[in-house]
Amino acid sequence: MKPVSFTLGELAERLGVALHGDPECPVHGISTLANSQPGTISFLSNPRYRKYLADTQAAAIILPEAELANCPVAALLSDNPYLCYARLSALFAPDFVPAEAIHPTAVIDPSASLGEGVRVGAHAVIEAACELADGVMIGAGTVVQQGCRIGRDSRLMANVTVYHGCEIGERAVIHSGAVIGSDGFGFASEQGHWVKIHQLGRVLIGNDVEIGANTSIDRGAIEDTVIGNGVKLDNQIQIAHNVHVGADTAMAGCVGVAGSAMIGERCAIGGGAGILGHLSIADGTTVTAMSLVTNTIKKAGVYASGGLLEEKQAWQKNAVRLKQLDEMARRLKVLEKSLQQLTDKGQNIE
Amino acid sequence: MKPVSFTLGELAERLGVALHGDPECPVHGISTLANSQPGTISFLSNPRYRKYLADTQAAAIILPEAELANCPVAALLSDNPYLCYARLSALFAPDFVPAEAIHPTAVIDPSASLGEGVRVGAHAVIEAACELADGVMIGAGTVVQQGCRIGRDSRLMANVTVYHGCEIGERAVIHSGAVIGSDGFGFASEQGHWVKIHQLGRVLIGNDVEIGANTSIDRGAIEDTVIGNGVKLDNQIQIAHNVHVGADTAMAGCVGVAGSAMIGERCAIGGGAGILGHLSIADGTTVTAMSLVTNTIKKAGVYASGGLLEEKQAWQKNAVRLKQLDEMARRLKVLEKSLQQLTDKGQNIE
Amino acid sequence: MKPVSFTLGELAERLGVALHGDPECPVHGISTLANSQPGTISFLSNPRYRKYLADTQAAAIILPEAELANCPVAALLSDNPYLCYARLSALFAPDFVPAEAIHPTAVIDPSASLGEGVRVGAHAVIEAACELADGVMIGAGTVVQQGCRIGRDSRLMANVTVYHGCEIGERAVIHSGAVIGSDGFGFASEQGHWVKIHQLGRVLIGNDVEIGANTSIDRGAIEDTVIGNGVKLDNQIQIAHNVHVGADTAMAGCVGVAGSAMIGERCAIGGGAGILGHLSIADGTTVTAMSLVTNTIKKAGVYASGGLLEEKQAWQKNAVRLKQLDEMARRLKVLEKSLQQLTDKGQNIE
Repeated sequence: MKPVSFTLGELAERLGVALHGDPECPVHGISTLANSQPGTISFLSNPRYRKYLADTQAAAIILPEAELANCPVAALLSDNPYLCYARLSALFAPDFVPAEAIHPTAVIDPSASLGEGVRVGAHAVIEAACELADGVMIGAGTVVQQGCRIGRDSRLMANVTVYHGCEIGERAVIHSGAVIGSDGFGFASEQGHWVKIHQLGRVLIGNDVEIGANTSIDRGAIEDTVIGNGVKLDNQIQIAHNVHVGADTAMAGCVGVAGSAMIGERCAIGGGAGILGHLSIADGTTVTAMSLVTNTIKKAGVYASGGLLEEKQAWQKNAVRLKQLDEMARRLKVLEKSLQQLTDKGQNIE
Repeated sequence: MKPVSFTLGELAERLGVALHGDPECPVHGISTLANSQPGTISFLSNPRYRKYLADTQAAAIILPEAELANCPVAALLSDNPYLCYARLSALFAPDFVPAEAIHPTAVIDPSASLGEGVRVGAHAVIEAACELADGVMIGAGTVVQQGCRIGRDSRLMANVTVYHGCEIGERAVIHSGAVIGSDGFGFASEQGHWVKIHQLGRVLIGNDVEIGANTSIDRGAIEDTVIGNGVKLDNQIQIAHNVHVGADTAMAGCVGVAGSAMIGERCAIGGGAGILGHLSIADGTTVTAMSLVTNTIKKAGVYASGGLLEEKQAWQKNAVRLKQLDEMARRLKVLEKSLQQLTDKGQNIE
Repeated sequence: MKPVSFTLGELAERLGVALHGDPECPVHGISTLANSQPGTISFLSNPRYRKYLADTQAAAIILPEAELANCPVAALLSDNPYLCYARLSALFAPDFVPAEAIHPTAVIDPSASLGEGVRVGAHAVIEAACELADGVMIGAGTVVQQGCRIGRDSRLMANVTVYHGCEIGERAVIHSGAVIGSDGFGFASEQGHWVKIHQLGRVLIGNDVEIGANTSIDRGAIEDTVIGNGVKLDNQIQIAHNVHVGADTAMAGCVGVAGSAMIGERCAIGGGAGILGHLSIADGTTVTAMSLVTNTIKKAGVYASGGLLEEKQAWQKNAVRLKQLDEMARRLKVLEKSLQQLTDKGQNIE
């Protein structure tokens, strides 16, 4: 990994933004505004961090034009500094080009087809009839089983597993430990024992999808499990068989989605949330962390369940009362009635 | 993977059911009734799908005799179409027979014993003194450490890890990323620091067990962690040390079970549920998704905890009140008393 | 793995405790007091198990001096039998010494530096510029990417993945399926699509850390994700980018920690708990299982959220009322006011 360095002029040109400052000034990395470092570029997107601007050590700051007057160093002007930072981050991301494109220990079936510039890491396994498009990268120890198709420039990190017959679109990033296409959890009951339902569907993953470490996506029972374009799944997520996840939906870590749930586009699912099976969620819905979705959501909005954190002693008292809540509600109603009668009577007395 | 095709006559015979229709009619796959496809077989188990029967494209439908009159195509008669479909699915499941039973890159210790028809995938590792019974399949990249025993016809998919000394019964299916026999989470405190308790037990897994992708089962501290016959564990499940899971219990994805919990037979544990340690759960108990079991359950039944999903604004108002619930209960009691006094007094006045 | 055996005299000496009994008596293992076995050593730390003492089959018991009179067999005296058992467990833990320190199928970049006594398992991959200190053990199938540093005597089990540039301290134990240094979940929104924020930080792990099976720890976005000395993470945990976990904190299985959370030292986080991002938790805080931490915790204590388990029918009634809780609180207030007015009026009448 060679050290990466750019001049501010180069960066302004690559990012397509205006520069106020010396275009020859070199920068070798990115730092946060709260802890800015000499020779780096930083960014101001959250106004709460404006207080760090005056004393910044950074060589340059990405900020909106309205903040230019407050910037003591060079500035790159952007209406959306956070997006500009995202673009910038790609320039500083290391790419490790291996000495050999195909590591000699990789096991690649002769019937697999590999496009231009495909890289396959040590001890990776590419089974029969796989098609790896141009620029695909397969990490060390990753196993791609029979008949998978992986689109252009997709990158599977080390120790990923893709079961037979799955399809992954272009520019995917799939992190280590992820499992794509394992059997859905399907069994029929026979006299108290479980009979396996073999899972004959596939997993179809669109373009520009990112899948986190140790996330698992099961293949469909008969039809396919479908992950739309631009979907971003964090780590430790479970996607059951026949789930559909709509385009550009993002899920934070540890979410579990049960079978045949249909999740809309552009949804945001908070960490640890659970989504039951055979329901649908409207486009643009937000579900907060650790909420459980038990029914179809027809109207986009922000949804939550669960209780707030308390000191345990207080929590215990309230949690016990929760078990009496229905009874309390009934007593409340009785009280209201009694009081009304008493009031009526009182008025009669008067 | 050769294309699989059967005639209806063959299927009826293999499934042991009566056929109404042309026994020579070929079928090449399974489709759902809601989206049935020509040349396939479908099934009617949920009455909600009866509406799709009239216009079905399928070559044949598995259904109970009572529905035969409504079936416009060939029919296979079964009292339990879902179970019949499960059996059918096995016939259409692909089996990829490798060119070489033992891949030349597999590392197999000379002291390991391999039965008839054992298959070991590329880059798999079988360490010393392992015993793999007839028909065992070990996937690519899977590591089976010293002294493990794996029963007849069990299949470990790619990138599974089994720690030393564990035992797996017959006909197991263990999915990619699963870890069997990692150390239980045991530490003794010494002046604020943790001293590791080495985990000397094993994991013992019965017959006909299925374990999902990225599920982990820790070895016991002193005695063993035990998974009974016929247990089905979905993906992303955590089974801590010394847990016992009774026969034919099924757990959906993302369940966590803490140390030494004793879970009965034929239980159904919903996705994301948590089960605390050192408790027991009666045979036949159901726990709903994302519930937390904090105490022993002596009586089989359906158990739940947690709140229902709401729009966040409404949720927030209610969640805040939840913290006042004990106080509300006390105020309710005071009100009831006061009203009673007032009523008594009112009666005196009258 | 050779069978391990000690005399009681040897054990007393190694553990630094007094022995009452025959120092020549051999013991070959550890058993629990509830199920003690001949030829083994057991321990009494929980008074609830005292009842098993009289009939114990064990060769010797570790117990406090106050219990010596009740012990029918040899005794090892300790004020803290549980800690003494932890030390004892290390003596009986098997260590599998491979025939070859570096397995011939391991792929080790020539630029990697390996200390004395380093062991690397079959099909493991050590990439360029890695530094493995003396005594490091790398399991079969484990991938350590470019430029990682691993401290003395650390052990990475089979099928672990460490991304480039991460640092792991001394005496770490990292279990199978763990992923260290995968990309944090960072994206900027651009007209409804997500633009990846490349994750340029590292993961820094201190000394004496244990990380469970299938746990994932993401690298930082710009700065680093930091795991302090002595931290113990169980299985299936998700640590997001830029999280800091303070020294000696322990987390049970399935915990999820969102980005930039700052967790103090000596905290205990219960299984399945969730911790939102950009907050901090005071040293010494306990969070109970499946609680959600949504705000900074400034004061150490025991914190909880969520409801108690109920039979589903009762739960359903109460859970529905929970949605009416704010309304109930308002009605309660109205009642109190009305009753007060009525009481005042009543007093006026009298």
